[in-house]
Amino acid sequence: MNPSRALAYARKHRPRFVDELKRFLRFPSVSSDPKRTADVRACAKWLAQHLKSIGLQRVRIIPTRGNPLVYASWQRAKNAPTLLVYGHYDVVPAEPLAQWQTPPFTPTVKGADLYARGASDDKGQLFCHLKALESYLRTARRLPLNVKCIFEGEEEIGSGNLFRFVESHREALRADAAVVSDTRMQGPGRPAINYAERGGLRAELRVHGPSRELHSGAFGGAVLNPIQALCEIVGKLHDERGRVAIPGFYDNVRDWPEAERAYMARVGPSDEAILRDAAVERGWGEHSYSAYERTTIRPALTLNGIAGGYAGKGVKGVIPSDAVAKLSFRLVPDQNPAKIAELFREHLAHIAPPAVECSLHMEAPTQPVTVDRRHPAVRTAALAYRKGFGAAPVFLRSGGSIPVASAFQETLGIPVVLMGFGLPDDRMHGPNEKFHLPNFFRGIETSIWYMALAARALSRNTPTPAAEASEWVP
Amino acid sequence: MNPSRALAYARKHRPRFVDELKRFLRFPSVSSDPKRTADVRACAKWLAQHLKSIGLQRVRIIPTRGNPLVYASWQRAKNAPTLLVYGHYDVVPAEPLAQWQTPPFTPTVKGADLYARGASDDKGQLFCHLKALESYLRTARRLPLNVKCIFEGEEEIGSGNLFRFVESHREALRADAAVVSDTRMQGPGRPAINYAERGGLRAELRVHGPSRELHSGAFGGAVLNPIQALCEIVGKLHDERGRVAIPGFYDNVRDWPEAERAYMARVGPSDEAILRDAAVERGWGEHSYSAYERTTIRPALTLNGIAGGYAGKGVKGVIPSDAVAKLSFRLVPDQNPAKIAELFREHLAHIAPPAVECSLHMEAPTQPVTVDRRHPAVRTAALAYRKGFGAAPVFLRSGGSIPVASAFQETLGIPVVLMGFGLPDDRMHGPNEKFHLPNFFRGIETSIWYMALAARALSRNTPTPAAEASEWVP
Repeated sequence: MNPSRALAYARKHRPRFVDELKRFLRFPSVSSDPKRTADVRACAKWLAQHLKSIGLQRVRIIPTRGNPLVYASWQRAKNAPTLLVYGHYDVVPAEPLAQWQTPPFTPTVKGADLYARGASDDKGQLFCHLKALESYLRTARRLPLNVKCIFEGEEEIGSGNLFRFVESHREALRADAAVVSDTRMQGPGRPAINYAERGGLRAELRVHGPSRELHSGAFGGAVLNPIQALCEIVGKLHDERGRVAIPGFYDNVRDWPEAERAYMARVGPSDEAILRDAAVERGWGEHSYSAYERTTIRPALTLNGIAGGYAGKGVKGVIPSDAVAKLSFRLVPDQNPAKIAELFREHLAHIAPPAVECSLHMEAPTQPVTVDRRHPAVRTAALAYRKGFGAAPVFLRSGGSIPVASAFQETLGIPVVLMGFGLPDDRMHGPNEKFHLPNFFRGIETSIWYMALAARALSRNTPTPAAEASEWVP
Repeated sequence: MNPSRALAYARKHRPRFVDELKRFLRFPSVSSDPKRTADVRACAKWLAQHLKSIGLQRVRIIPTRGNPLVYASWQRAKNAPTLLVYGHYDVVPAEPLAQWQTPPFTPTVKGADLYARGASDDKGQLFCHLKALESYLRTARRLPLNVKCIFEGEEEIGSGNLFRFVESHREALRADAAVVSDTRMQGPGRPAINYAERGGLRAELRVHGPSRELHSGAFGGAVLNPIQALCEIVGKLHDERGRVAIPGFYDNVRDWPEAERAYMARVGPSDEAILRDAAVERGWGEHSYSAYERTTIRPALTLNGIAGGYAGKGVKGVIPSDAVAKLSFRLVPDQNPAKIAELFREHLAHIAPPAVECSLHMEAPTQPVTVDRRHPAVRTAALAYRKGFGAAPVFLRSGGSIPVASAFQETLGIPVVLMGFGLPDDRMHGPNEKFHLPNFFRGIETSIWYMALAARALSRNTPTPAAEASEWVP
C-alpha cells in the first residue's frame, strides 16, 4: 500500500496534531501519586475517545486493580500481518516544581520543542503512531496491516497490571511483532533502534530507630541514630572502585565478545557525549568500561531518594524515629531480578548495625531485554527510519528498563521493535522535559512508512488472528 | 522576707496560672521557621504585657536583627542583691504533626500533664518564675531582692542576637547570679540542679551532583549519585566502635577524675533509665562509658535530618541534583567549637569522593558550661528545691546545650544556676511534649523560696547596680 496520501495528510495537519498532543499532555497522569488517580482516569478516557475519533475500532477502557488499560484495534486487512502498538499514558511526578521554567502540565512550545511532563516519556512518542494511523484511516480509509493498540497507565510504577493482563490474554493480543516507542535516538537527525534494555528492581529500605523523635542533646551519643545507620548501610553498597559491593552481584553478568564491544564503541555515544547529556563534568563508575558500557551492559545500583528527621529550613536538634532510602537496581543479561533481590536481602542482614531494625520492600522485578537485530520486524524499522528521518539508524543499547518489552517477548513470543523518537537531552523524568517537534513529525512519517513496509515484510500468508477476548470489556 | 503569703497566693491561684500558661503556649513561636515570624512577635508582645500585668517595671520589647528580646525588672530592694532571670519563648517546630495525639498549639491537660509544643521547653519552666514574682508583688507589693528578667525568642536557633545584646549591655544586665530554668529533673519528686551542659555546633552538609535530575536508567552507573556520596561521607563520620572518626576530635576532651565519675555513677540515671526514657531497647555509643557519661562528659555527633531525591509515595527513577544532611555536634570540656569546625572541614575534604562537590555551612558554636557547685547561688538553689519539692536535689550533668549559660558566665562573670523543672519523659523537641503540672506548681514555690533565700545568701552589702541602658528602648 502506497503511503503517499497518508504522508501528505500528516504534513498538512501538523499544527492540529501539536494541539492535540498538548491536550493529551495537560492531564497530570502521575501514576505513583494516589492523589492523581482521577487525573489518570480522565487521561485514559480522553485517550480512548481520541482513538475512536481517528477511526480505530473496538475501543475499550479496560479496568484493572490499578489504572485502566486503553485498547483499540483495526483488523480488516485480510491475510496481512498484525502489529501490536504499545505506549504508556502515565508519567512520573513533576517535582521539584521550582526547577521547571514552564508549568509541567501546561504544555508550552518554545522554539522547536514542546515542554511538558510526559512530552517525550511517553505521550509524545505514543502519539506518533496514533497520528500515523489517523493519516491512513482519514485518507485510504484502511490500514496496510492489522493493528492492535494497547496503552497502559502504570509503566512508571512497574506495569504489574499490564503483565497480568498480557499473561491472561495471550490469544487476544496475538500479533506478529510489537512496536514500542519509549526510547531515545542518538541526536537530532540521528535515529536509533534500541536492541537492548536493562532490567530492574526497586527497593525501599527503612531503618527504624527510637519509637519517637528524641532530643539530640539529651540522648546524642547513647542511642543509635537511624539516619546514621542508614548512611552506614548505603555507604557499604558500593566499593571504592564504584562497583556494587553485594557479594555475588556480578556472578551472572554476561561478558560480551570483543566484537560486540567494538561495535558499541563504533556506533555508541562517547564518554564526552554522555557526560554532556548528563550535564556533569566528571564521570564515575566501574573501571575499564566506557560510560556507554557502564549504562548498558553493566549493572548499576542507584539511590533515587532519601529522607529522615528534620531537613527543612532552620534547625531542629532531634534524633528521628526512622529514615528511608529508595533505590533502584538496573540489571543486565544474565542477571535474574529475583536472585538479586535475595542477594541484596542477605547483604543487608550482614551489614546492618545490630542496634537498629531495618525493613526492606522490593518490587517491580524486570528482566533485561535483548532483541534480535536480524529479525525482519527490526530490519524493516531501520528502513522506515531511513524514509522518515532521511538517515539510517544505528543500533543502540539503552540503560533504562521497558518492562513491557520483556513481557511481550517472553509471554507473547513476538519480537519487540524499540523505535525511539526521543532525544538524549529530552530530560525524561527531570524538570523541563520536552519533545523535539521535528522528531514528532518525522516520527509520524516513520510510523506511516513502517506500517506500509511491515505489511509485506511480516507477511506469513497466515490468516489474521481474530481472537479478541470479550471478557475484558467492563 | 517571709515567703508564706506569696506561697499561699501561689497555691490559691493554680487554676488561673494554668490557664495563663495555656494562653502563652497557644503561640506557635517557632523561631526556625521564617513563616512564623509574626507568631513569634505576637508571643513576645503577649509576654511583655503579661510581665507588666503582674507588676514588673521597665517592661521592654527590645528589637534585634531577628526575634525581639523581652525585658522587665524590679529594682526597689535597697542593698539587696540582683537576680537575672532568663528564659526563652521560642520553640522548635512541631513536625511530624501526625505523631501528635493533641494539636501541638492547642494546649491540652490530660491527667496531671499539660501537652503542647514548648510546655516544658521552655515556656512552662519560664512561667514558674513569673508566677513566683507575681505571688510576691500581689501580696507584699515588693520582692525580697532585685530582679532583671531577660527572655529571648531565638534559643532554638543559636541565641545569636541575645549574645550580641549581652556583649553590648554588660552594665545594664549586671547581677549577682542568673537563674535559668530550661533543664530536667531526675524524675517526679526528684529535683536536680544541672551543673554541666554540653556545648554545640550545628552543620549543614550539601552534596551537589548533576545540575539537574537525571533518569537513573539512562545514567545510572556512569554518574556519581549525590545521595550515595552523602551516605558514604556520613558513613565515615563514626568508626565501628561508635566513636566520632574525625581525626583530633577527642584531643581536648577532658578526662575526669575517678571521684567525679563515681559521683556521677552514684547520683546519675542508670543505663536502663536512660534507655527507658528514650524508648529504645538497645544502647549504643563509646565503649567503657555509661549512657549517662556518653550523653554528658563525652562528645557526640548526631544526624538531625537528611533529604535528597524523591522519597515521597511511590517511586521515581532519578539521580537527584543534590542531597543534604543536617548534623549537630555536642561538645564537652575542653573542646573548642571553632577548632572542631576546623577539624570537621578538614576531614570532609579528605573523605569526600573526588567526583562530587560539597558545601558545608556551620553555625551556632557554643562553649560547654560547668558551674561551681559550691557557689552560694547554687547551694541556695538546693535549699529552695528542698522547700519546694520536699526533697534534696542531686547535682546532674545534662547532654543538651544552653548557650546562654556560657554567655552569662563568660560575659557577665556571674554564676548561672540551672534550676530545671522538666522531667526526662517531657519529650522536649519531640511530638507530644508535655509539662508535669505538679512540677509547675512546685517550680513556682521553689522560685518563691529561692528569691527569699538568695536575698540573704547573695547579699554583699553593695549597692544595687542601677544602670539600665536606655539605648535598647525602641
